[in-house]
This record gives sequence, structure tokens and C-alpha cells, in this order.
Amino acid sequence: MPRVFRPVDITQEEKEIRKDYFDRHTPRILCPESVRRGEVFRVQVQVGEHYTHPGETDHYIGLVQLWNRETLLAETRYSPQALAGKPGNIQVDWYITAPEVSMNLTAMSYCTQHGLWTSEPRAVKVV
Amino acid sequence: MPRVFRPVDITQEEKEIRKDYFDRHTPRILCPESVRRGEVFRVQVQVGEHYTHPGETDHYIGLVQLWNRETLLAETRYSPQALAGKPGNIQVDWYITAPEVSMNLTAMSYCTQHGLWTSEPRAVKVV
Amino acid sequence: MPRVFRPVDITQEEKEIRKDYFDRHTPRILCPESVRRGEVFRVQVQVGEHYTHPGETDHYIGLVQLWNRETLLAETRYSPQALAGKPGNIQVDWYITAPEVSMNLTAMSYCTQHGLWTSEPRAVKVV
Amino acid sequence: MPRVFRPVDITQEEKEIRKDYFDRHTPRILCPESVRRGEVFRVQVQVGEHYTHPGETDHYIGLVQLWNRETLLAETRYSPQALAGKPGNIQVDWYITAPEVSMNLTAMSYCTQHGLWTSEPRAVKVV
Repeated sequence: MPRVFRPVDITQEEKEIRKDYFDRHTPRILCPESVRRGEVFRVQVQVGEHYTHPGETDHYIGLVQLWNRETLLAETRYSPQALAGKPGNIQVDWYITAPEVSMNLTAMSYCTQHGLWTSEPRAVKVV
Repeated sequence: MPRVFRPVDITQEEKEIRKDYFDRHTPRILCPESVRRGEVFRVQVQVGEHYTHPGETDHYIGLVQLWNRETLLAETRYSPQALAGKPGNIQVDWYITAPEVSMNLTAMSYCTQHGLWTSEPRAVKVV
Repeated sequence: MPRVFRPVDITQEEKEIRKDYFDRHTPRILCPESVRRGEVFRVQVQVGEHYTHPGETDHYIGLVQLWNRETLLAETRYSPQALAGKPGNIQVDWYITAPEVSMNLTAMSYCTQHGLWTSEPRAVKVV
Repeated sequence: MPRVFRPVDITQEEKEIRKDYFDRHTPRILCPESVRRGEVFRVQVQVGEHYTHPGETDHYIGLVQLWNRETLLAETRYSPQALAGKPGNIQVDWYITAPEVSMNLTAMSYCTQHGLWTSEPRAVKVV
């Protein structure tokens, strides 16, 4: 399988030294901590917080995925034309329906030059 | 090519008679009428306004696309697990960067039983 | 919806004048004329016959789809790295199972600069 | 990140006990061991060798990917309609152009009920 860059594998020191590199590739999940069974809720994923990522045809973030444990829930692709050749932060909002049991979400992002990155896991309690 | 269901091909009378069918498949674009060059703005697409669409494994809306004229800008897939088996309205927010020239956006949606549908075109002026 | 370039809309004269342009974008389906119910058979799609298409990061054929009437059966994406920056002819083989009733296949291809193209329809009899 | 089922993590004993389960999900790459720079060559991926996988709308293999180290080269999606509801073995042929340096390919497959699986890596020498 391709190497996956994971926050848990990266030491604090390494993160400091190359903080722009890690920041601009690692996806972050923003969503409620707790949702009601059957409720539709928004899951926002952002890639890059303090640094922007290039938006060039040979170097851009083209794919963001949302997983609940082993299940792929949603996937968004951006083409470089959506970025108009400008650096920026990828963002997408999905709207999903809370299932019967609590969720453990992770987001993945794919950079055409620097491969596959995962977010920290994000627990969402279903009440 | 596959048949594409388009609002312009459907008479007002036909829309009335089968309004649930057309409503729950036709995507609608919500975004500003005018944006500044290089600005990042949100494009929201909703499928279904007054009626909900099934979210079953053999019948769901699995794909929504955003086009600017002939160019595919973004694409989102939902798996049926994102819908938790419940009827609902598909929604997604993309964040795109305004290019140099004005845009003419359309959204497409794909239902696994009823095929490909297009939105009305949506002009976005770039100033 | 985006404009779709279709062989039936293009006059013979126009095809002659810009034959390289039409040739290198129009997908062609190669498969048996007749298959048995439940049989697995190969559907090959080729884009470009006499002319090659660029394989550059800002200009390549990134997507090929196979439709049976209104139903999307299969879809293949190539990234420009699969083309190693070289011009060539896109090709993919899918293996699908013949359903109960006869099929009417079409292939679509998407060029990142010249949009969406459709093949001629291809009838496949199920016996 | 989602759990990825990898041949290297699975003991020989475990493989024996649940050989149908592992066989029908693990992708295998068939391609030449050595190719010439710039040559177009076929990479075939098969999922399942001795056992078939279900092809039902709530349980099927919907996605197969081809990676060269960290780079996604190609991706194919099948919809359950391509499988006509029948059990079978997923197969796809991609045609890629050999780059300047030797490759290390892996294939991934995704089952809608049993998640993400990887092949053994497959070295391809570029001469």
C-alpha cells in the first residue's frame, strides 16, 4: 500500500522543523461531538490551517475522503481549475445522517506530489 | 451518451404532474451572483427541495458534480452509509477560487436508479 | 449541463477539417455484439485511433466512463503520472456481467481542456 | 485512517482458517517484471482467485486503485449494476506509460462491507 502520513507517526520535533509541510497537508475534521440518531449534520474538512498549499496543475490537493472506521462515507475531488492556479486551503462540507451507533471519523487527503495524509480520528457520539 | 434530464426539456405541465419526481432529482446551485477575482467562495448544491429522496443501497443519489461550462471543477460522492438508510436531501458545499473571467456553473446529480440530472445554469459574475 | 461533444452532431465535413481534434477525444467501444445472460465479458474503451492525445499535467484525458442507457456501470480515472508526460491513446478494459436484457452501451471521456465527449452507442444483445 | 488489510499482517495460519475471506478481497497485480522507458504496458488487477465475491447492492467491491509508491496512477469504480447482482471476481486492465525510474506498484481494493485491502507490492524494473 502507499505510505500514509499520519499525525501519530510524526514526532513533535519533526512537526516543528517542517511545520509548513505537515500543516498544509494534514486534514482536520470539524463537526459536533455528539449527534442524535437519524440527525443530518455537517462535517467540514479543512486541509491546511496556518499555511496555504499550491493550487497548480502539477501540484494540488485533488481528493479528500471521509471514513467512519472501515467505511468510506464521502469523497470530494477538486480539479486544479477550481483553485484558479492560486495557493489556498482546501475545504469541503458534507452533510451526513447519524447512524445507530457512535462513529469514529477520519479524513484523508491526497496531494498529487506528496501523497496520502490522514487526520486525527474524531469520535462522534450518537445519542 | 446517457439521457440527461434537464429542466429546460420538461414542460410546466409535466413538472406539475410528477413534481415529486423532478423535485427530488434536480440539483440546485446556491452561491453569490458576483465574486471578486481570486476570491474563495462557497458553492452549495442541494438535490431535492420539497421532497426527500430514498437513501437505500439500491437507490440513492451517489454523485454530484460542479461544472463551469465544459470544465469539471469538483465532484462529491456519497455512499449509502452516509445516508444511514434514511430518505433525505443531498447537500454539499464546495469552496472554489474565482478565476479571471465570469463563470457559468451547472451542477449534475446522479441517481443510481433514475440517472443523470442537470441544474439550471447559474451565471456568476467575476468583478 | 456541460456541452457534450457527440459524433452525431458533427458533420462529415467538420470531421474532415478537424479530424485530429475529433479523433483524439472521441471514445470507441470494443466488445462482443452478443453475450449470454450472466456471462462476464470484456468491454474495452479506446480514446484516439490515428492521433495521440497529450499526457501533460494541464492537458490530459483523466476520466472514462461506461454507461448502459441511464446507468453508470464503470468509471476509470488516470492521473497524468500514469501517462509519464507522454502523448498517447487512453485505453481501459472493464469486465462486466451481462444482465437479463440487452444493453445499449456508451462511453464518455473527459479531457481537462476540451471537456466531455461521447462514443457512438453500441448495442449488445443478451441471448 | 481506516484500517487497511495487508497480506504482510496476516499470519499463514490465519490465512488458512479464513482463506475464503482473504482470497476474495485481496487484489493481485499481473504485469511484466520489466518494461522499457516510455513503453505503454498493461497492468491487470484481479480481486479474488479461488473464491468469488458477492455482487449485491449492499455488498460489492466498488473501487480498485493502482499506486506507484505514494502516487495514485489510476482508479476504477464498478457500480453493482456492472455485476448484474451475481458473485464474481473483479478485474480491470489499465494501460500505463513506463516512467524514467523503476516502479513499485500496489493495488488497493475497497469492499462496501469489509473495507480497504492492499495487494503485495509489485516491483517493475524500467530499463
